[in-house]
Amino acid sequence: MRKLKLPLVVAAALAAAPALAAPAAAPAAQQDLAAGAQRVAAQALADRTAWTVLDSLTTEVGPRPVGTPAMARARDWGVATLKALGFENVHVETFTTPAWTRGAESAEVVGPWPQKLHVLGLGRSPATPPGGITAEIALFRSYQAFLDQPPGSLTGKIAVVTQEMRKTQSGEGYGAINAQRTLGPAEAAKRGAVAYLLRSLSTDDNREPHAGSAMAGVPAAALSPVDADQLERMAARGKPVTVHLELSSAFDPKAEAYNVVGEIRGREAPDEVLVVGGHLDSWDPGTGAIDDASGVAIMTAAARLAAQPARPRRTIRVVMWGSEEQGGSGSAYAAAHKAEAPQIVVAGESDLGAGQIYALTLPKGSAASPAMTAFRSVLPALKVIHDPQAPRFGGSDIEGLMGLGVPFVDFNQDATRYFDLHHSADDTLDKVKPDELAQNVAVWAAFLYTVANSDIDFRKLAPVTLTQEAPKP
Amino acid sequence: MRKLKLPLVVAAALAAAPALAAPAAAPAAQQDLAAGAQRVAAQALADRTAWTVLDSLTTEVGPRPVGTPAMARARDWGVATLKALGFENVHVETFTTPAWTRGAESAEVVGPWPQKLHVLGLGRSPATPPGGITAEIALFRSYQAFLDQPPGSLTGKIAVVTQEMRKTQSGEGYGAINAQRTLGPAEAAKRGAVAYLLRSLSTDDNREPHAGSAMAGVPAAALSPVDADQLERMAARGKPVTVHLELSSAFDPKAEAYNVVGEIRGREAPDEVLVVGGHLDSWDPGTGAIDDASGVAIMTAAARLAAQPARPRRTIRVVMWGSEEQGGSGSAYAAAHKAEAPQIVVAGESDLGAGQIYALTLPKGSAASPAMTAFRSVLPALKVIHDPQAPRFGGSDIEGLMGLGVPFVDFNQDATRYFDLHHSADDTLDKVKPDELAQNVAVWAAFLYTVANSDIDFRKLAPVTLTQEAPKP
Repeated sequence: MRKLKLPLVVAAALAAAPALAAPAAAPAAQQDLAAGAQRVAAQALADRTAWTVLDSLTTEVGPRPVGTPAMARARDWGVATLKALGFENVHVETFTTPAWTRGAESAEVVGPWPQKLHVLGLGRSPATPPGGITAEIALFRSYQAFLDQPPGSLTGKIAVVTQEMRKTQSGEGYGAINAQRTLGPAEAAKRGAVAYLLRSLSTDDNREPHAGSAMAGVPAAALSPVDADQLERMAARGKPVTVHLELSSAFDPKAEAYNVVGEIRGREAPDEVLVVGGHLDSWDPGTGAIDDASGVAIMTAAARLAAQPARPRRTIRVVMWGSEEQGGSGSAYAAAHKAEAPQIVVAGESDLGAGQIYALTLPKGSAASPAMTAFRSVLPALKVIHDPQAPRFGGSDIEGLMGLGVPFVDFNQDATRYFDLHHSADDTLDKVKPDELAQNVAVWAAFLYTVANSDIDFRKLAPVTLTQEAPKP
Repeated sequence: MRKLKLPLVVAAALAAAPALAAPAAAPAAQQDLAAGAQRVAAQALADRTAWTVLDSLTTEVGPRPVGTPAMARARDWGVATLKALGFENVHVETFTTPAWTRGAESAEVVGPWPQKLHVLGLGRSPATPPGGITAEIALFRSYQAFLDQPPGSLTGKIAVVTQEMRKTQSGEGYGAINAQRTLGPAEAAKRGAVAYLLRSLSTDDNREPHAGSAMAGVPAAALSPVDADQLERMAARGKPVTVHLELSSAFDPKAEAYNVVGEIRGREAPDEVLVVGGHLDSWDPGTGAIDDASGVAIMTAAARLAAQPARPRRTIRVVMWGSEEQGGSGSAYAAAHKAEAPQIVVAGESDLGAGQIYALTLPKGSAASPAMTAFRSVLPALKVIHDPQAPRFGGSDIEGLMGLGVPFVDFNQDATRYFDLHHSADDTLDKVKPDELAQNVAVWAAFLYTVANSDIDFRKLAPVTLTQEAPKP
């Protein structure tokens, strides 16, 4: 009964789209590659596939945390979508990974000025004891001021850290403050606190908290920026402020999870593989439109466009990784594909929403190669800067492959608005601009086209190095 | 123990502020009035009283729906604040009014694409039966298309109306679509629907629903704009969409409520009274910063400034009305002050947030009077247009007085952002811009100064007429 399960919108798009063309002739010369890349990029700007995929996943599946029934629906959606779009060798690679699932949650100021607080428990947070935790807060306006507290000094208190994230184009503000969420609960435990609240890692000013994972520690939750402000004002008045917190959750140390895979097989060198994708799982508050249905949509559409009009020389493989938010899908993928790693030409993950790509660097030594010269010919029209100094982060789900020496690329997206929305209830389809999504598809499609239709070997050009620690969106 | 109950920030502001000056000489000439009005307006732009009051009410009381313990705290806050700021004859006028209080609420799509929906039950909505309501939706993209359905045609369905509110500077978009909330539940009942969901009367695109009252009908709730979009996309796919809705609430037909009053008594004609204020109650999701702590703060600060440096000729009375959102405070006030109505020189309510006043009209025939000529002299510096054609709405809490023939003014505030926030969890202090708040105070303070220090009689100039139906923010 697969036909009935086909996502309706995707099926409609398929009906209007040309089938993959039949195999064509030998490796293209640089000029031909450039002409092909420019054609592919132009097609991408007018192509609706990525939007259709994004709309379908966010509407017909919605939120899809690992370990939930929604994730199983996402898996089925992924298989159906890749098949409907003409991918080959569509299959699911199952693995197990720890999965934390949110239960009922609430928080409120009980005195001296009673009112509700908007919170979201952090992934991996333990539940509060029955009846919750009621305690005085100890509020710090910087994470460092909190860390400066000696062990045991916060005994019995709810530690609150309200440092604000800086909005930046590159997203570097997130890396700079990430420890406030990921390590704060453990640091609170060391200092004797009974719970930990942080200002969400958010660049918006609305009432939505932003979820996210943390290392083991005390029960911990993210406050909306507005609620963090409110606690700051209360604390500044000099009276003890008491908060009641209740968090519940379920935890499965070995939840079933799924990497969903589809390929466009190469016509000449099918065992040389380009591995690209986004992650299929999402946090629960929103529908995961920017994190990361956009990445899934961009790569799926780009791979398909890169195979027009002719099947490429090499294989292009799209992976919808199944547990990025709570971890596990990248390492599972690398473990399963260790033997194949030497034949993976390049790996890439799109996982910073659908903001335009504004800059990129290429693997060391490759920029002047015929293939990358051809690729770079599309950049001016797409307003992308080729900047050899641009930072390279890789991507959570390709870190395992990177560890096996697989060359990688990532492209620098405009993340100015990304952290307004990321991990919050506002991560929804309406926040994605179709023209920005299409620009991402155009850049990736041109890149995949030139690599898949050339014999470039990034390994022979230079060793792979990471220029800095990667943030994990 | 009143001293301990004084709002801390207000007390601090008071310590730094001059006391009300002693009575001074007779009615001022037009030139003196103009000079005084300009001085008062300039002082207002630098004065922090309104911000301090606003910060205090939203932080130390927070949300304050009528009929809740928070409303009693707001009453005590109002008395303490007016006394701390030097007002005289501070007292509470108690009345009873129906009060609806929100209980637990939830909504979700159960099929074909299960996911949670963000909703807020409408004020006066009946609760759903035990176990909630599960039914197929019938979705209409315009309110008129919904009204076009014949009686009984929606039997067993959840009616959903997703028409969007237009953002405008004047706020006229709210009046144009208000029936979608206020009358929709009753219209749904006529057509046989079992429940009613509407797109929030919101001009934002985030995940917050906007609360508000409605006439009696079926159980009814407002969807966030994002959730309304999502149901539109689902409905467009052509499969039946089933929603589960649970709403609970409490209803008290005779809740105790409070109009909190303070005066600056006139030195020459104390029985001639200017009655101005905002409303003290709010909806529950936010802290009621723009609706209407801002109005309370603006009028409290303006009255105080208008009494500088000399006690005015006439009495300026500030009223913090206690049940605007669910109704009752304006009619209670009018009923209690019917005998006094002929001596109320003018009435005004600030209830459209803290966006700048950009235009105003004055009671018919008054613009060229010495007092209003003096008042108008402050407008250019405050960038306010005197526009005799500007619409006049009055205000919910002064409608009762208006019905008794009391002259009134209102000033046209920029409402461009007001309906992004109004009645939602995002109605919080951080959304108010201090300079815009101060501009409101300046206009009102200059107006109160010129009227209270003159002998202008708006009744003798022209009859009071309403140019159009008032929206009820």
